[in-house]
Amino acid sequence: MPTQPILIAGSWRSANSSATFRAENPATKEPLPEEYPISTWADCEAALAAASQAAAEMRSLSGDKIAAFLDAFAAKIEGRKDDLVKLANLETALSVSPRLADGELPRTTNQLRQAAAAAKDGSWAAPTIDTKQNIRSILEPIGPVLVFGPNNFPFAFNSASGGDFAAAIAAGNPVIAKANTSHPGTTKLMAELAHAAAQETGLPPATVQLIYRTSHEDGERLVSDLRVGAIGYTGSRHAGLKLKAAADKTGRPFYAELSSVNPVVILPGALEEKFDDIATQFSSSCLMGTGQFCTNPGLVVLLAGPQTEKFIATLVEKFTAAPVGTLLSGGVGKSLEKGVASLTQAGAQILVGGKPGGGKGHSYANTLLRVSGAGFLKNPIALQAEAFGNESLLVVAESVEQAAHILSELEGNLTGCIYSHTQGADDPAYKLLAAVLRQKVGRLLNDKMPTGVAVSPAMNHGGPFPATGHPGFTAVGIPASLRRFAMLACYDGVRQSRLPAALQDKNPSGKLWRQVDGEWTTRDV
Amino acid sequence: MPTQPILIAGSWRSANSSATFRAENPATKEPLPEEYPISTWADCEAALAAASQAAAEMRSLSGDKIAAFLDAFAAKIEGRKDDLVKLANLETALSVSPRLADGELPRTTNQLRQAAAAAKDGSWAAPTIDTKQNIRSILEPIGPVLVFGPNNFPFAFNSASGGDFAAAIAAGNPVIAKANTSHPGTTKLMAELAHAAAQETGLPPATVQLIYRTSHEDGERLVSDLRVGAIGYTGSRHAGLKLKAAADKTGRPFYAELSSVNPVVILPGALEEKFDDIATQFSSSCLMGTGQFCTNPGLVVLLAGPQTEKFIATLVEKFTAAPVGTLLSGGVGKSLEKGVASLTQAGAQILVGGKPGGGKGHSYANTLLRVSGAGFLKNPIALQAEAFGNESLLVVAESVEQAAHILSELEGNLTGCIYSHTQGADDPAYKLLAAVLRQKVGRLLNDKMPTGVAVSPAMNHGGPFPATGHPGFTAVGIPASLRRFAMLACYDGVRQSRLPAALQDKNPSGKLWRQVDGEWTTRDV
Repeated sequence: MPTQPILIAGSWRSANSSATFRAENPATKEPLPEEYPISTWADCEAALAAASQAAAEMRSLSGDKIAAFLDAFAAKIEGRKDDLVKLANLETALSVSPRLADGELPRTTNQLRQAAAAAKDGSWAAPTIDTKQNIRSILEPIGPVLVFGPNNFPFAFNSASGGDFAAAIAAGNPVIAKANTSHPGTTKLMAELAHAAAQETGLPPATVQLIYRTSHEDGERLVSDLRVGAIGYTGSRHAGLKLKAAADKTGRPFYAELSSVNPVVILPGALEEKFDDIATQFSSSCLMGTGQFCTNPGLVVLLAGPQTEKFIATLVEKFTAAPVGTLLSGGVGKSLEKGVASLTQAGAQILVGGKPGGGKGHSYANTLLRVSGAGFLKNPIALQAEAFGNESLLVVAESVEQAAHILSELEGNLTGCIYSHTQGADDPAYKLLAAVLRQKVGRLLNDKMPTGVAVSPAMNHGGPFPATGHPGFTAVGIPASLRRFAMLACYDGVRQSRLPAALQDKNPSGKLWRQVDGEWTTRDV
Repeated sequence: MPTQPILIAGSWRSANSSATFRAENPATKEPLPEEYPISTWADCEAALAAASQAAAEMRSLSGDKIAAFLDAFAAKIEGRKDDLVKLANLETALSVSPRLADGELPRTTNQLRQAAAAAKDGSWAAPTIDTKQNIRSILEPIGPVLVFGPNNFPFAFNSASGGDFAAAIAAGNPVIAKANTSHPGTTKLMAELAHAAAQETGLPPATVQLIYRTSHEDGERLVSDLRVGAIGYTGSRHAGLKLKAAADKTGRPFYAELSSVNPVVILPGALEEKFDDIATQFSSSCLMGTGQFCTNPGLVVLLAGPQTEKFIATLVEKFTAAPVGTLLSGGVGKSLEKGVASLTQAGAQILVGGKPGGGKGHSYANTLLRVSGAGFLKNPIALQAEAFGNESLLVVAESVEQAAHILSELEGNLTGCIYSHTQGADDPAYKLLAAVLRQKVGRLLNDKMPTGVAVSPAMNHGGPFPATGHPGFTAVGIPASLRRFAMLACYDGVRQSRLPAALQDKNPSGKLWRQVDGEWTTRDV
């Protein structure tokens, strides 16, 4: 079988490769037949040159045109749903149904269509007009966007179809997709559909390009290249920080989603009221998708007492009884094993699980660990390291004050959640803990688990470092996620006919939201 | 005379200093009498601890309370206007009038009052409400902000009174001001007034803190400390990039304003129409404040021809005839000398000036250099290096295409400007050149010089790297400049009574602009 082609400058062609790799079926541990190339710098250079050209061309496209592409792509994904789901299942072992067919694929097309609507509407760019001084500004495309997709969402965060892709394109930028190495086939099929949609709707040939893998050195060179506008990265903290350092050196905005343990605090009043519900919610949130979510609840803070002991015993039962899922890859399994080992070395005790196996293919037993509040505070950095997968650490604090101390030792996280009594019994504790937690997380939840990440204009899938690279931006939620891939462009005394349509006196659609002299309005100037 | 005190945790006290320094009067080259301390890490540590405490307290303050502080501070500045102007003139040699008394001081109080209005109004934080899913988000304070002010604006960009200071405070953050070493006395007086205003209006004691100088090592440690929310830096590219690298390592947003040559393109039709006006505008823009503006026009692109030769001759006359101003410091003089030397080494020819002296105190002759378009393209990096001061490089291109090529070789800049014929004679050239220039600059101007930076909601005083550290943010223009010092905070399913007032169903002021289900409105939910 010939090595799979890459997509550069509108053509599927052979890579300039240094070597090849194959993906694996995680459920059988068997390598899949297709060979994919590891590109050399020549491929990266070609992609950058073509992307620069495409970026210049895309700047003059209307939002309608970009929207037509995104909509056409969504329709093509639906047209090839069965193939996509089958392939993604083969490469990731995520369930055909409900996960891939009923959950992730509709989420992906929904995101693309929301991005299309945002591109068409244009209000995401926050046009701002100062009529007295004739100064006007708007967000404009930032330039070619490199997308590094994660292993855990083969559709919805895929580098050629996911949230970063949709946001980058809707903001007017071409994308160079770097496939996640655990699902190159799914990514290739997505890129095929995207490229076909781009051709049909008249977008530049290099709107979407695809490479599979490079050396680490070429990866760092790529993210720091001055032709790159920005980078969207979701993946491991170690690799992400290396790429971020390279991008930072040349001032390339690096939007990273690196790691998060998503602390959940369960207060006594909540346990009293909704013991069973919370036990079920937590177990299902933690084990769903074999725990392989960015917002998996990996750290639970409880207050010491008999009710908490009973709750922990119930969780142990549930974790024991629940089927053990298949992990996304052997690498995830090894890293989970290592993560649990380092938690126990740091003083945590295994309550259940703690060993590989128990499921089909690559798997690891559903695992709960426990540590006292005092134990956590002895080694807070090691005990908050993410162990990605079906695992969680329960921290039993002696007091609300100790719980607050524990939260104050946390690094930045995507989410933080507090369960509390509905009639106010936990209110003083909530007040103290929420004040600490609020500053540590991008999204604060009440009385629900963090694993649902709604595609809402008010969503923040982001948070303080090291959860992400900048606490002001979100990777999910349209139109906010588009703003990552834009630069602020001001027009000072520029003649009316030379202004972008969105900044001319007449509101181009009559529906565009603009801030005119301090007021948001859809009226003409 | 005892060493001057620093302001830490609400007290003026002796520094833990390793050494002292004195400022200089640039007009006499005489050192000024006061001694200022170079702080050791102990002072930084104390400032960080106090700032963390203040940040936590400030989170619960209303916008009204913060506004009262900013307004009181502005009034105090006006009350001490004569002292401030006298001291700043002594330390910077900028003219008492019009510059300091009539220009910069009113600009500074105006900025503080605009920031107060923004804090009071609250709309800067872009409250966003999804009523269907009960997800709500808003920008909240990012944490203690370190401000490194530049040498060239002792009031309006002063670390204890300028644009970054006002934006950081209005967004709800305490400030640790690091004085510019060329005007420590002015900064100390500003910090005294700010601190008095903070005490009178009941803000936390460490709302404003002041240190003067640290070792480079401690500076890097300071910007990378995890207690720091963000950094605002305006200054030299070399020092800024070192600090940025330190901040990047721990994910601290580093908003830098580093360097900019602010290209100005003058097309033949414009010269034909407004030869004298443009010559006057350019000379005055370039020599005003002895050329020491971030937006000083340091690179002019002209098209070869007899009219251009005549224009250049006129500029030479004007630069020869204009008085030579005093530079801000001996350091600025040395760096200008070095900058001009490296431009000539790179192939530029001196038309006028090119040597130190000619004015009072530290000075350098008004200087124009020239290079051909082909010459520029041989060495574009060296020939676009900023030589901060009363200097500009004229690049004479052979054709519009060559001019476009020249612009395409530029790094990121704060501003870019094109002068063109008012009746359309230059339109094809404009179209080509503006498309290239737009992507290189934060603010694109037509038919006017870049040195005026209006405090407008639509202003962008920012731009692609290395002009700044991130192309999505502006350092001037309220409320946009506040958004640099904020994190996105999402509330998912959080009970109504626990939400910040701005996100509750009822619009707290009836005037707060919020995005509710995709519409901007001031109504209640």
